[in-house]
Amino acid sequence: MTATLYCFAQSGNAYKVALMLELSAHAWKPVFVDFFNGGHRAPDYLALNPMGEVPLYVEGDLALSQSGVILTHLAELTGKHGGTSAEEKREILRWLLWDNHKFSANVSIHRFLANFLPEHQRQPDVIAFHAARQKQAMKVLERHLATRDWVAAAGPTIADFSLCGYLYYPEPFGFDRADWPHINAWLDRIAALPGWKHPHDLMPGSAAERAERRNP
Amino acid sequence: MTATLYCFAQSGNAYKVALMLELSAHAWKPVFVDFFNGGHRAPDYLALNPMGEVPLYVEGDLALSQSGVILTHLAELTGKHGGTSAEEKREILRWLLWDNHKFSANVSIHRFLANFLPEHQRQPDVIAFHAARQKQAMKVLERHLATRDWVAAAGPTIADFSLCGYLYYPEPFGFDRADWPHINAWLDRIAALPGWKHPHDLMPGSAAERAERRNP
Repeated sequence: MTATLYCFAQSGNAYKVALMLELSAHAWKPVFVDFFNGGHRAPDYLALNPMGEVPLYVEGDLALSQSGVILTHLAELTGKHGGTSAEEKREILRWLLWDNHKFSANVSIHRFLANFLPEHQRQPDVIAFHAARQKQAMKVLERHLATRDWVAAAGPTIADFSLCGYLYYPEPFGFDRADWPHINAWLDRIAALPGWKHPHDLMPGSAAERAERRNP
Repeated sequence: MTATLYCFAQSGNAYKVALMLELSAHAWKPVFVDFFNGGHRAPDYLALNPMGEVPLYVEGDLALSQSGVILTHLAELTGKHGGTSAEEKREILRWLLWDNHKFSANVSIHRFLANFLPEHQRQPDVIAFHAARQKQAMKVLERHLATRDWVAAAGPTIADFSLCGYLYYPEPFGFDRADWPHINAWLDRIAALPGWKHPHDLMPGSAAERAERRNP
């Protein structure tokens, strides 16, 4: 059954799922959510997903929000990238939770506030607060990857796809790959996986795609 | 096997686990982490838990951080409060992730910044930012509980214990139970479960307990 992913090119949380769908070769199609014009708060969208979040994953009667549970579901469904032993599965879930709690949580807000808010609405204290928490979390991931190729198992898992969700985007959010050699090498390893694509090439609504639509 | 929980009275994330241990009648003992004096960043603690977080759960050779995965592990171990069908388990995980991403994440930072930081370090913009996000998340939970007694199943689950983690504390963090009638009634339902205890009565290091140690 072809899955549907409600998403947009700039959403790292949606990218986590889109990447897993590609890398596990699961049939899917994207549906564009016009987040920057409030599409995630529109009544018809809230009827599908009362949490008002992107991504939303739909497969027959099943509609799921929260990238971490969608990834876990896809790992079970496809038998890929979900770990094998109970210990690996626990470790994967631990890093999925940490990503949502500490890592992507801060990176995504930092990137949003520093790039997608109108300049007059940007609050330097709030941006600096998230930048500091992002740096703290980056240190934890950098140390973790110093001694291993993948976050939670011997090969790539949904924990890797979750944690990398925001790290390929071009907008400046205080993340220079050269400052984080182990994270940098790990991002290269992920990008070398067969089927890997950049978020702008997987999901609709990138700036380039919009320009192309205006000038086909 | 008696479990050990590294915790302190003011930690809502530790309370989530302590409450599950009590309500599932699993033998455990607390070990005090002196968070307010940097105990979670001390080298001996980081050796146990490189994420530098509280709680840490230890059971024989297993050492786990991240309350969401500890709760999931305890539900599997005890056979309690973890849901029965695949659908319930998915729904539980979805709310655990949402709690870590959107709900407790904002409540805990808001409460910390507004109460536990020295006054001269409090940044009004940063507090207001988290207060607004907390309110947004409260609205989602309030709407969800309008039509049901428990968050993710017909009875109480680890999703309830996770989401309530910060909501029994006395410090002011912009949460007046009277403003949220469905959340209020749900908190009463949880507090009426046999074995329920307040966080200050479950974990060491509350202000009252500290005063008692000074004046026994």
